[in-house]
Formats: sequence, C-alpha cells, structure tokens
Amino acid sequence: MKKSRSIFQLALLLVLITGSGVDAFCQLRTRVISPEVSADNKITFRIFAPEAKNIKLYGEWITDFTKIETLQRNDTGLFQITIGPVPPEIYGYNFILDGVSILDPANPLVRRDGQRNASLVLVPGKESALYGAENVPHGNLTKAWYDSPTLGMQRRMYIYTPPGYEKGDMTYPVLYLLHGGGGDEDAWTTMGRAPYILDNLIAQGLAKPMLVVMPNGNAYQPAGPGDTPAAATTRPADFASYRGKYEESLVKDIIPYVENNYRVIKNKDARAIAGLSMGGGHTTTTTNNNPDLFSYIGVFSAGARNVDDDYRAKLKAIKDNKVKLYYVACGVDDRLAYQGSLTLVEELKKLGMPYKFRESGGGHTWANWRIYLSEMASMLFK
Amino acid sequence: MKKSRSIFQLALLLVLITGSGVDAFCQLRTRVISPEVSADNKITFRIFAPEAKNIKLYGEWITDFTKIETLQRNDTGLFQITIGPVPPEIYGYNFILDGVSILDPANPLVRRDGQRNASLVLVPGKESALYGAENVPHGNLTKAWYDSPTLGMQRRMYIYTPPGYEKGDMTYPVLYLLHGGGGDEDAWTTMGRAPYILDNLIAQGLAKPMLVVMPNGNAYQPAGPGDTPAAATTRPADFASYRGKYEESLVKDIIPYVENNYRVIKNKDARAIAGLSMGGGHTTTTTNNNPDLFSYIGVFSAGARNVDDDYRAKLKAIKDNKVKLYYVACGVDDRLAYQGSLTLVEELKKLGMPYKFRESGGGHTWANWRIYLSEMASMLFK
Repeated sequence: MKKSRSIFQLALLLVLITGSGVDAFCQLRTRVISPEVSADNKITFRIFAPEAKNIKLYGEWITDFTKIETLQRNDTGLFQITIGPVPPEIYGYNFILDGVSILDPANPLVRRDGQRNASLVLVPGKESALYGAENVPHGNLTKAWYDSPTLGMQRRMYIYTPPGYEKGDMTYPVLYLLHGGGGDEDAWTTMGRAPYILDNLIAQGLAKPMLVVMPNGNAYQPAGPGDTPAAATTRPADFASYRGKYEESLVKDIIPYVENNYRVIKNKDARAIAGLSMGGGHTTTTTNNNPDLFSYIGVFSAGARNVDDDYRAKLKAIKDNKVKLYYVACGVDDRLAYQGSLTLVEELKKLGMPYKFRESGGGHTWANWRIYLSEMASMLFK
Repeated sequence: MKKSRSIFQLALLLVLITGSGVDAFCQLRTRVISPEVSADNKITFRIFAPEAKNIKLYGEWITDFTKIETLQRNDTGLFQITIGPVPPEIYGYNFILDGVSILDPANPLVRRDGQRNASLVLVPGKESALYGAENVPHGNLTKAWYDSPTLGMQRRMYIYTPPGYEKGDMTYPVLYLLHGGGGDEDAWTTMGRAPYILDNLIAQGLAKPMLVVMPNGNAYQPAGPGDTPAAATTRPADFASYRGKYEESLVKDIIPYVENNYRVIKNKDARAIAGLSMGGGHTTTTTNNNPDLFSYIGVFSAGARNVDDDYRAKLKAIKDNKVKLYYVACGVDDRLAYQGSLTLVEELKKLGMPYKFRESGGGHTWANWRIYLSEMASMLFK
C-alpha cells in the first residue's frame, strides 16, 4: 500500500538511514532481482548492501554445512552468488549478513516455520509440480474457529475443501493431517503445500476428492502467532499437564465440529489420519486409544519408541477393527525417527496389519513429508 | 519443524558462518526477546549482532524521519533500544543493519505489504482492541478460488463469514471490501485485520452479522505472490489493457460466485462496497457504472479527481436508485487523496446524496483504514 510518502521522502529517509544517499537512491531506481532461477535450475541471489563486510547464503539445498558459500561483492556494493543446478524443489533460505540471519530483502515470499522465518524460492520441475499452484481447479481453504470444551478455548484450524465442494450436495471423506513439533496450524499449508498437493492429485484423478483438516497440535495454544495472545505462543509452565489432551480434543471436539458443519461421510471408512514427527505421535496415540475411528492411518517420520504389551494390544485392536491401511514412512537418514519407524513396522508385520512401509532417501524434511502426503492421499478411500 | 540437525550441528554451522562460535552458541542458549512491550506502552527492541557496525530502527510510529534512532551496543554484541510510550496500535517495523533493511530475527510475526515485509508489534489498548484477536466468537475466513471469465483465469479472494454461519440457514448481507495499490487479496486481512474488526463489532452488537468479500484488485494476477506463477506478480507490459476490467469482473464474476455459493441476501439493500485508495477508485467506477447494485458505498482515502458532467450524471443515478449511505473518509494529512475527497463530497452535497464525510487526523495509513472500516461497518444494513 502506498503510504503518504513521496519518492523524495523515501530517498531522504534512506540518506538519513544509510548516510549514502546516491547508492540508496540508485537501489530504489534499479530494483534488485533476487532470487532468479534460470532454465538449467541454477539460482542467482543478489543483495545491495554497500556497508556490509560479509554476506553468506544458507539454503535448504545444503546438506553439508562446510559448503556454505559467500556472496561476491561488486564495486557498487551489490553482492551476488549463483548456485546449482539444484533439483526442482521449494527451498527456504536466508542470507547471513555480518553474522545475522536475515531474509532476502528483494523477495516478498516468506515462510514462517514456528518461531523463525525464511525466504522462499521455487525451482520448477517434475518434483515441484506436485505442490505448485498449477492451472487446475483449486479447492478452497478455510481458517475455521471451533469450540474446544476439552481444552477450554476457541481454537483455529485449516480446512481444505475439494474443488466443487461449494456447489451440489455430495458428501466427502476426510483426512485429518497433523503437523510436527515447532509448527502450528499453518505448517501443512505453508511448508507442506497440502492444498496444492490435493488440487494436483485430484485433477489428475490420482486422489479421491476429500476434505483435509489441519488443526493446531499445541494444546496450550488457541492459534499460531499473530492470531493469539502473545503469551500463548510459548510453552506454558504447566506444559506437561496438556499431555494427551490434544489427542482427546481431536476426537471430542474437532471431528464433531467437522462432521456437524461440513458435508462429510460420517463413518470409519471415510476417515483417515496422518501426522509427521510429533504429529505422528499424536496419530498413534489417537488411533491406539480409538481403534474404531479411522480406517486409514499414516505415521510420517515418527514410528514408535517403547512398544510394550499394552501398545501391542492396542495395535491388535486396530487390526481387529479392520483398518484398511497403516502407512509408515521415514527417510533412511532420519536419525530422529528411522529406528522408531523400523520398530513400528516390525510390530505391524508380526500382527499381520495391512501396512505399507515407505522407506525414502533423505531425512526429517518437508521435501519428504510432501511426498509421503501425496503417496498416502492417493491410497485413501478407494 | 525439527530438521535432522542436532544442537551440535547448529552450533557448528554458526561457528562456520560467523567465525565466532562462543557468542553464537550463547545466542542459541539465551534467547533474545524482541520486541518487548511494557505496561506503560514503551517497546524494547533487541538484536544480537556482534559483527554489525550500526543498527537503526524504522517503525510506523515515526512520522518525522529525522527522528530515526540508533540502537545501543553492549559488550557482548547485543544491540538494544527502548522507544515510546507510543499509542496502542499495531506497528510494522524494520531494523536497518549496516544499511540493509531487515526483519527482527527474534520476532516470528511478519506482515507482507505487497513486495515488502515488516516485523509486527502490537501495543495493546483501547484503540488496538478494535482489531485484536479478542476472546469473542470468531468468524471463519476462506481463501476461495472462483472462475473469472471476464479476466480469463481462476482467481483467489478471501471471504469472511460471521460467527455461527456454518450452522443454521440464516441468510446474510455482504460487504465487498477492496484493497489499494501495491496490495493484493491478503491486505485487508493482514494489515487491515478486517476479520477481527468484524468479530469485535459483531460481538459488541455494533455491526450486523455480514459476509466480507476481499478480492484481488490486480486484474492481471490470479492471486498474491506464492500462490500464483512468479511472472504474474509484477505488472505485465499490457497493464493498461486491464483498465476497468477488474470492476467489470467484480460485477460479472465475483458477486455471482458469492451469491450462488454462500447463504446471502441477493438484493441491493444487502450489498455494500468500500475500498481504500486504488480500491476507492474501483469502488466509484463500479458504482458509477452500476447505480442499482449497492445501497452502501464507501470511499476511503481516494475521492474523485476529474468530475465532469458524465460523472455527475452517474452520481445522480446512484442517488435516484435510493442509495442509503455514501461514506467518504480521508485523513487531513493525506496529500494523495484529501483534495479529491473534498471534491467528491462537494458533489455529493450538491446532489443531496445521503452521505457522511469522515475527516480524520493522519494520512494514507492502515491505522485510518481500520478505523474507517469499523465506522462504516457499524452503519451498514440497518
């Protein structure tokens, strides 16, 4: 939005701020382009910073931290670097300007990951087409507030409805999709790109039209930062007392809200649940305690830690309730969850559960979670 | 979300990046708190930047650009400043680190304003309570995609539905709310805080429950950055050819989508339209060309430029169609729009239009637009 400032005032402001009016004014006039993705999947990053000593670049394409690169400065104070080629993907990145992690000032695309922000760049290609805003019918996405008597507050979640939901009287199945630690209800939309993944799968006939419900898994929090009192964004002192409460609210508050307010099919075979990392734990707790609620269960990059007789009995009850798919997925480099995933799969195998184990490359990353979602979504409600 | 990195790796990364491992590791351990708002409405800002030469602070509370302040460095490399007291308000701000405008690394709240980002701080109080996430029933907010045959693409808008909309069969009136130049469909939600303004007014009985439809006013653009191909985020070469097309699509595409897909009252007395700056221009163009569509018209910080006989005849047609309210609002310091607002009001007065002119302090700012929205919303559909 335009403020009540002229270009002259802006230039004056920059003179005052930087003490280098000419350079600053030139930056205004010749806008820096960053990031710039070339046809061969190289990315050029630029930042105009005449007074900076040193600018480095950290991005999610880096797996070897010794390979962090430094931008080159030209004589006007423009710093630049070209990296790649890199695989088609959506990457978060930051500049490190004299030791401080900053966003790319020329890039409006920002992704919040819990308490941190990163600039975003999308390298188009086959892999990223999965979650790009392609020219296909788009479903709507609603930030919905619901009452949670279990947690004693109004809380927020996202609900994706498939293209065409608004018209007609069809009823749909529902996937409950849970985020991981450090995230909130935004995560599966912003980093997970779940709405676009579903749009693209549905358009290609690879997934059935379904609703996707993405709640906030931090039981002490009404909603993510900015839509909640500041105090609620950090863990409260009595954090431990919330243990198991979110899973309880999912069953007692969230599913009833969805089934009473949306045109959905209200039975087990039309309900799926999946979560990543902490959300994988929420998933196993919820399904272990409610073996008759979901016919499709997905545990991404989580697995199981301490499998005792009680845990085994609960898994058996899930099988006895005729679950249709128990999907477990993990990257082989995921030190947080790979062993737990193997443990869980071993139990499923012994029980004769209808399971699928998806071992992928890579680690505990959104690149993997987007792939797991797309694979599991294509197996649901069929 | 947790990545597959240990604290050790993070520390190593920071050693490599900054060359000062101890300081960096300490920043990890003792988290910087910024911003911190005190009970007396002062704000303290902090940033840990041992290698920075100079850090300044620019925030929306500053009206005199010669008063930009510099943060003080302590011996560990923590920079700090306390400003204020300032009036209760939501403020955007940036640090200027050695000449480069950056976000506050310790603050997850970011607001995108077109192509730029700012960190956000809310100073609570009577004024900011208008648009805070208060403990009142919240309406839902949907990102809806609709077909625009007029513009030849799928496009996105936000639709606010009042608390309770999902249940029951009541029908509601609709306010079409238009953003200004440089903004997109996000603007009235992120900077305008329209959903919370409506929640709060409705909870206090000051506004009737209504839908608020917030489209994207850039006719060449399907949606804002990140949800649209990159090429569509900047003005195309044939920008001029889109003149008047958005206003046309509002009438031919947007209103029919809303009236066919939502439970709304489908007549003139249940339709209002308002816009700020460029959106005020969109409003006058739309209502001048369609004098029988809206009973409530709001022109915020825009006014009229060249009022000729044709323009006067169109305004007269609006009056003859029994418009109920023509609301014009502008700040006396708004050099872009104050004169045009006086011009428009003069015409309305001559015509005997049922108008209200709201002259406020201040300029071309979101602080004013939030106030104008709340005032106008409380006068609608009564």
